[in-house]
Amino acid sequence: MRELRKDPVLRRWVIISTDRSMRPNEFEADYDHFAGFDPTKDPFAGGNEHLTPPEIFASRPPGSQPNGPGWTVRVIPNKYPALRIEGDLNPRGYGLYDRMNGVGAHEVIIESPDPYALLHDLPQAHLVEVLSTFRSRLEDLSRDKRFAYVLIFKNHGSGAGASLRHSHSQIIATPIVPGRVMDELHGAQEHWHIKRRSIFVDLVDEELLMQERIVFENDLMLAICPFASTFPFEIHIIPKRQCSDFRRASTEDMRALAETIKVCLLKWKGALGDTPYNLLVHTAPNDTEVSGVREEFPLLDAFYCWHVEMFPRLTKAAGFEWGTGYYINPTPPEEAAEFLRQIEVKRN
Amino acid sequence: MRELRKDPVLRRWVIISTDRSMRPNEFEADYDHFAGFDPTKDPFAGGNEHLTPPEIFASRPPGSQPNGPGWTVRVIPNKYPALRIEGDLNPRGYGLYDRMNGVGAHEVIIESPDPYALLHDLPQAHLVEVLSTFRSRLEDLSRDKRFAYVLIFKNHGSGAGASLRHSHSQIIATPIVPGRVMDELHGAQEHWHIKRRSIFVDLVDEELLMQERIVFENDLMLAICPFASTFPFEIHIIPKRQCSDFRRASTEDMRALAETIKVCLLKWKGALGDTPYNLLVHTAPNDTEVSGVREEFPLLDAFYCWHVEMFPRLTKAAGFEWGTGYYINPTPPEEAAEFLRQIEVKRN
Repeated sequence: MRELRKDPVLRRWVIISTDRSMRPNEFEADYDHFAGFDPTKDPFAGGNEHLTPPEIFASRPPGSQPNGPGWTVRVIPNKYPALRIEGDLNPRGYGLYDRMNGVGAHEVIIESPDPYALLHDLPQAHLVEVLSTFRSRLEDLSRDKRFAYVLIFKNHGSGAGASLRHSHSQIIATPIVPGRVMDELHGAQEHWHIKRRSIFVDLVDEELLMQERIVFENDLMLAICPFASTFPFEIHIIPKRQCSDFRRASTEDMRALAETIKVCLLKWKGALGDTPYNLLVHTAPNDTEVSGVREEFPLLDAFYCWHVEMFPRLTKAAGFEWGTGYYINPTPPEEAAEFLRQIEVKRN
Repeated sequence: MRELRKDPVLRRWVIISTDRSMRPNEFEADYDHFAGFDPTKDPFAGGNEHLTPPEIFASRPPGSQPNGPGWTVRVIPNKYPALRIEGDLNPRGYGLYDRMNGVGAHEVIIESPDPYALLHDLPQAHLVEVLSTFRSRLEDLSRDKRFAYVLIFKNHGSGAGASLRHSHSQIIATPIVPGRVMDELHGAQEHWHIKRRSIFVDLVDEELLMQERIVFENDLMLAICPFASTFPFEIHIIPKRQCSDFRRASTEDMRALAETIKVCLLKWKGALGDTPYNLLVHTAPNDTEVSGVREEFPLLDAFYCWHVEMFPRLTKAAGFEWGTGYYINPTPPEEAAEFLRQIEVKRN
């Protein structure tokens, strides 16, 4: 079982594992999950489909069999899910406290059958398939009215929280809208109330005007090192056409986003080597009765915009960051962007 | 120079280094700062006072000279400060964006002249001196009306962000009240509006009633693994007597807190070995014109309570945590507390 518990002071939810607790000796500080990687035993490799739970979705040529080889992108349930798909939320009190069942979905998107291919190695057309898979899983999971939010994210490298070497992304559907997303919605709504404009449209305009923090752009996407970057060499990718929901991104958007992600990853590689990183897609929450999102943010489609946030893990959060919520970024985003602009990349 | 920049969507401030930018090749992923530790070159060791900037404060026997040996606890300015003490905030706009000068204070509290002594090794009376130094630095820095908040924190071990082996704590005074502290104040004020009671008093009562998450207690302090612990084996220490401000903690409070911190650290050591950890003191913000704290929270002294938060760094924040603000804790706090209760500690 997983349980959601609410911090009584901060009003923030935490996911607590209640069935199989981790004992003190089970935490391995700097264990290298990737040491002794054997591609023949890689559960995500093409040909090893029997080593995973049955697939939820796969991009396959006509005639190939489910749970057999031949696919390009494959989605499976996470074997060790953060939240479980079965059951009801059953929110209840416990003395002073609030809790509910840890109901949700947790899926793994295997980006390629090749044990060694990394996201930036994939041809652009293959990357479009990965992004289209993100979109179709998001569409499908949004239909479950228990889920208020669906987060798509990627952990690359042990230092960024990945526990398997084979390149993959993850999807977690949660029964409540995450605090971080609520903060974005509140900030964007406040801007709307003053300006009657989307803060994301204003951001794109300002960055195009200032020309100081742009890493890459094409007709549809703008990649910048944000003005208040939390991490050195952080990049945000914002669509130039306002669109609140990643589910409504077009096929052209997918192509433009694939190109932008690939270029940014290759520029990181040129500047930083094989650095661990996280990448995540922020999109509008689901409109469910439980989430109450459309009541709280009736004009959400006008003021919110989906976007991609990606950041290398070069610095460590310490006591100051945990105690304040402030981050110290040792590299000004203007310099990071200039450095990344100068890195030339070869695309396949 | 340091600059504070506000995220235009999240309304969160970030500290950006603008004078000496870190270039890509300067980030050392898993560099061990502690390798080749040489106590004769340890700038924090007794006898090496000339290797540090002049002291701001020291606990010394009568007759000993400032910046010479003989001290038990010593405070110096941080050589590489996150914020600088000189100048004015000078808040200003930059197109769409907001920024201000990175004015603040950043001090280091050397907890002992012994290069090898860790916080839990110190005799309880020595630990009382460390805590009293925290309190007196907090008092002194609060007098500077540019500072809205003073955070005291400790990073132990490279994995928790420490860059020097010699045991030390840090103080950072900031010109704005940190978001994390504002969240606590808002949550506590909301509870006050409904119940007319301090949430911290209610928490202490509930934990004493439930008897499920207590790690240690004495007459004045309660140490618990919080109901919604973000991290496995996290501990919060809450005074049993409501008091908003650590500056008003009594000498008896200091003694009781020293005992509690020492016992908790020794219990961690018994359960987890020499694990990296962070420890921080949350207290009421300063009442300055800029902070506007007493206007926003006029009853702060009734509903807020200073407390200590400490957490071992056993798990890594990955894409999910960054994207949502939710944390996944694999050890239920009830089991963590039971485990820690069973660890017997020998005190000196």
